[in-house]
Amino acid sequence: MDFSFDNVTIRGGFWADMQKKNREVTIPAVYERFSETGRIKGLSCCRFEDEPEAPHIFWDSDVAKWLEGSAYVLAKNHDPALEALCEEIIDTIAAHQWEDGYINSHYTAVEPDKRFTDRSCHELYTAGHLIEAGVAYYCATGKDKLLKCVERFADLIDRLFRIEQSTPFLTPGHEEIELALVRLYRCTGNERYRDLSAFFLDMRGNNDKDAPEIWGLKASYTQSDKPVRELSDAVGHAVRAGYLYTAMADMAAISGDEELRAACHRLYDDIVNRKMFITGGVGSSPRGEAYTVPYDLPTETSYAETCAAISLAFFSQRLLEAEGESKYADTVERILFNGFLSGLSLSGDAFFYENPLSIHLRNRVKDVSVEHGDRFPIVERKKVFGCSCCPPNVNRVLASLERYVSRTVGDTVFIDQYTESTITGDGFSVGVSTDYPVSGEIRVSCRGVGRLGLRIPGWCREFTLSAPYKMEKGYAVIDGPGEATLTFDMTPVLYGANPDIIDCAGRGAVMRGPVVYAYEGVDNGGYIPERYRLSRDLLPEVGDASFCGIPTLTVDGEFIPDRDELYAPVGEPDYRPARVKLIPYFAFANRGPSDMAVWISLKD
Amino acid sequence: MDFSFDNVTIRGGFWADMQKKNREVTIPAVYERFSETGRIKGLSCCRFEDEPEAPHIFWDSDVAKWLEGSAYVLAKNHDPALEALCEEIIDTIAAHQWEDGYINSHYTAVEPDKRFTDRSCHELYTAGHLIEAGVAYYCATGKDKLLKCVERFADLIDRLFRIEQSTPFLTPGHEEIELALVRLYRCTGNERYRDLSAFFLDMRGNNDKDAPEIWGLKASYTQSDKPVRELSDAVGHAVRAGYLYTAMADMAAISGDEELRAACHRLYDDIVNRKMFITGGVGSSPRGEAYTVPYDLPTETSYAETCAAISLAFFSQRLLEAEGESKYADTVERILFNGFLSGLSLSGDAFFYENPLSIHLRNRVKDVSVEHGDRFPIVERKKVFGCSCCPPNVNRVLASLERYVSRTVGDTVFIDQYTESTITGDGFSVGVSTDYPVSGEIRVSCRGVGRLGLRIPGWCREFTLSAPYKMEKGYAVIDGPGEATLTFDMTPVLYGANPDIIDCAGRGAVMRGPVVYAYEGVDNGGYIPERYRLSRDLLPEVGDASFCGIPTLTVDGEFIPDRDELYAPVGEPDYRPARVKLIPYFAFANRGPSDMAVWISLKD
Repeated sequence: MDFSFDNVTIRGGFWADMQKKNREVTIPAVYERFSETGRIKGLSCCRFEDEPEAPHIFWDSDVAKWLEGSAYVLAKNHDPALEALCEEIIDTIAAHQWEDGYINSHYTAVEPDKRFTDRSCHELYTAGHLIEAGVAYYCATGKDKLLKCVERFADLIDRLFRIEQSTPFLTPGHEEIELALVRLYRCTGNERYRDLSAFFLDMRGNNDKDAPEIWGLKASYTQSDKPVRELSDAVGHAVRAGYLYTAMADMAAISGDEELRAACHRLYDDIVNRKMFITGGVGSSPRGEAYTVPYDLPTETSYAETCAAISLAFFSQRLLEAEGESKYADTVERILFNGFLSGLSLSGDAFFYENPLSIHLRNRVKDVSVEHGDRFPIVERKKVFGCSCCPPNVNRVLASLERYVSRTVGDTVFIDQYTESTITGDGFSVGVSTDYPVSGEIRVSCRGVGRLGLRIPGWCREFTLSAPYKMEKGYAVIDGPGEATLTFDMTPVLYGANPDIIDCAGRGAVMRGPVVYAYEGVDNGGYIPERYRLSRDLLPEVGDASFCGIPTLTVDGEFIPDRDELYAPVGEPDYRPARVKLIPYFAFANRGPSDMAVWISLKD
Repeated sequence: MDFSFDNVTIRGGFWADMQKKNREVTIPAVYERFSETGRIKGLSCCRFEDEPEAPHIFWDSDVAKWLEGSAYVLAKNHDPALEALCEEIIDTIAAHQWEDGYINSHYTAVEPDKRFTDRSCHELYTAGHLIEAGVAYYCATGKDKLLKCVERFADLIDRLFRIEQSTPFLTPGHEEIELALVRLYRCTGNERYRDLSAFFLDMRGNNDKDAPEIWGLKASYTQSDKPVRELSDAVGHAVRAGYLYTAMADMAAISGDEELRAACHRLYDDIVNRKMFITGGVGSSPRGEAYTVPYDLPTETSYAETCAAISLAFFSQRLLEAEGESKYADTVERILFNGFLSGLSLSGDAFFYENPLSIHLRNRVKDVSVEHGDRFPIVERKKVFGCSCCPPNVNRVLASLERYVSRTVGDTVFIDQYTESTITGDGFSVGVSTDYPVSGEIRVSCRGVGRLGLRIPGWCREFTLSAPYKMEKGYAVIDGPGEATLTFDMTPVLYGANPDIIDCAGRGAVMRGPVVYAYEGVDNGGYIPERYRLSRDLLPEVGDASFCGIPTLTVDGEFIPDRDELYAPVGEPDYRPARVKLIPYFAFANRGPSDMAVWISLKD
């Protein structure tokens, strides 16, 4: 694999359970939905009677992400049935590749004379996902049929876009191919792909050929308003942005380009200090599925697309790999346990595209006279979407969690994410035993390791480590490690938000370790969350492990009783002491529609 | 006049100033806008080159409301220029009335063969406003040209709708004519108009001929989902609802129909106990400009159309006149000083259609990538709207404030609204001297009055009255009154909201007397309101009388300082003591775009 994968085995615990669910439920479910909706059949570039636009412009990318996820599964698991499905898909793609290398079921079937004429039509994005799938499948299985196909496709793109510059636009409307080409370069060693990626990055917002607007949206929607090295504010479509920033970080690492590196740091800081939900979700507005302005983090209408959280995890992981600072791994962890995982139902077969931070069911039935409601996120997960980018993205991230577990830098093995796992390498091995984040106890056992770096998460206020260590970039580094036990204090913590976030005023959010908690009406008498206030001293009681092993919490607070008056002078409050039950945020909306809130009113 | 008007003179103080502004600025400004936009010219039933639909279906109603307002002005003021404009309008309307009595510039000019074919097209609504104008102009000036016109029009409607029932629908899509016909009946004594009004009320939601849906909206949008006597929940378009409920109250008073009266009481209770903003605004949602569900009173997107507040004032006043309970006058007062008056700029020539209870400018620039924002209310008043129903409605309400000042029941003169005024009648007169609501001191001086009832407002916690009295239905009633001084405690009061109103959780609103106050960023460092918290002990300081004589307030609170972190554990708050400046809500958005809030976070 082009990243740390083969040398990591996730053996048990929370993420192993998730990977099992992904293999056994989610990947088959997504395949089934893709079959039903024509996405699989569409690969053979056929027309559909009732859908003149099908195969749709992004269908190939959906299947490619599913294929990439399946490749990671096959790398770790013997599964002939899954492999047969993958082979069939690859054969179909190969059979319909053009002589000159072009692949795209929509353009091949529907408008072959229009290929590479419309910057907004996701062709290069789709190419990027095919390339990632080709690389992953080759690394996983050693079979290079798809890899060869995508190399030929990339060669064609390189010739038309970079060498001849004969296309009517120069950079993709939807980024993705840039990071994919870096992977193709790393997999094949062919510098042409690195150069093409660099070309796309360098030309972006920096040429006269690209249409500045897409679908009537400003150039910033596609991060095309200025050259990438000048970017400072995360703007525009959040998934596009995240994939672009990821490629920028990749390229900065490859080329040592300090300007590009500095831009990455500015963008990362802008996101995590001003534009990220506490869940790691990003993209505040459904309009343009976009980043907006600092501190604009509305809870009820938060867009926070699952794919956008994933793209920020990619970007953060690249920065971690480049810089080695634990804060980047903290962001990856925040996303994985919260804003990413909320995208998947507990049953494993239904998905959120948007991940709101509060639900008031009243807002969904608000208008008794009008059929159609405001644009609010849905309140229960769906099995498939018209634009179904998120489900296969969940597939591939869950199947490749190994990437995030560990890095080896010189003689130091860093443990970035804690899960029951084994890390091996040139003459060394590390065993990690833990039920984290159920408890905060992690036992490590090393053989042949020079130094071991254990991430001390940013959320952790106290920890003990049984071996001598020194802190380096947020890691407790042990020289010549053997056995050691690291214990994090998992006492639930009440968080406040920056006072410039309107919707969080006077409210707090509870986290236990990396897991953000949420209120649901179904656990608390069916009331709107505003009927409760949390005590600043939570007096938490850890409950049963109902949600994928993660415990519920019951915390201290008070209940605001009914009142007849609509408005009345503020008198002595008659709040009643109450306990408030909270569940892990990622598990919300799994028990039917319910009011929900991450941010809950606080007593002084 | 068909209501208490001629015997009341508003001599000075707050409302006299507003009436002066209305005469000198607002009425001329609205006329000018109506000239510019073709509404005046359209009365001659001409076509417009660039606007195939003009004269629009509701243009006549806009002018009719302006004419009604001007009539009230002429009743109290010598103004030959204004009278000439009115006469010209009346002559034009009369000249284009059909032989059979029909009046409507749109149908006459654009689609004469389609008249009375489409329930959604505001013909009867427009007829209603013409009737009100005809009645008002006759009562004000003694000239009956327009009255005769509208009688002929009403006769036609009565024949087609009630007697022959030859029209393809039986009740108006937009209510208004019901209450207008009651006025016409009271003015002319012709019972035919009372019966037609009763017919429209009885048939509503009670026949198979009316299209249940209008513009794809459910029957409840037009209050046509059930017979009026069965109504319990205020639903649908808030202006339509308010005009209907007003007519229901009128008819209940005329007929003594207890079922109708009970329905009015259920509807009123539903509104003031569950669906009214603290400003007296109603209609929570821009979708359908409608009432929604109980406690759905969002501050940022509150629709609270100026006309809807007016319609609730009408309904409340009818109930006051029927029941004599002060709570109805309280609602009228709440509306007049707040949710109605906010519709007019301090300059007198610009208007809000919607009256939000909070503004965060960030929400208006939220999306940096997309041209068009969410559907939020505008942040500065406009001189005219495409649908310009509110401006002339402001004209007619300001010009007829006399209606709300006093009622005489038997030998008792009730003072319902306090303003510098003289009330005269059969052998009696009452002089009211006050700068209310600048101060709470009211001096009354009576001659020939049997009993005097002085409203003790619901907001008033303490008062003194220099004469002996007993309380009746919320009024302090003095037997054989002479001179007396009534003094209300005007100490600002902090109000809380029902805990089921999501947006008011943990917040308070300040009122001084009947006036609701608001925070504006421009007075408080440009910060979002959430950066401040109010103390429960307001320690108020009454400031200068910058806004139409109403003082600003400075109250106690604290400021939440900047913080770098987006999220951090809740520690000891480092809030700083601060004073918070508040202005009368009705005066918000008069100094350029600014953040605004009525509901402000509270300290415990």
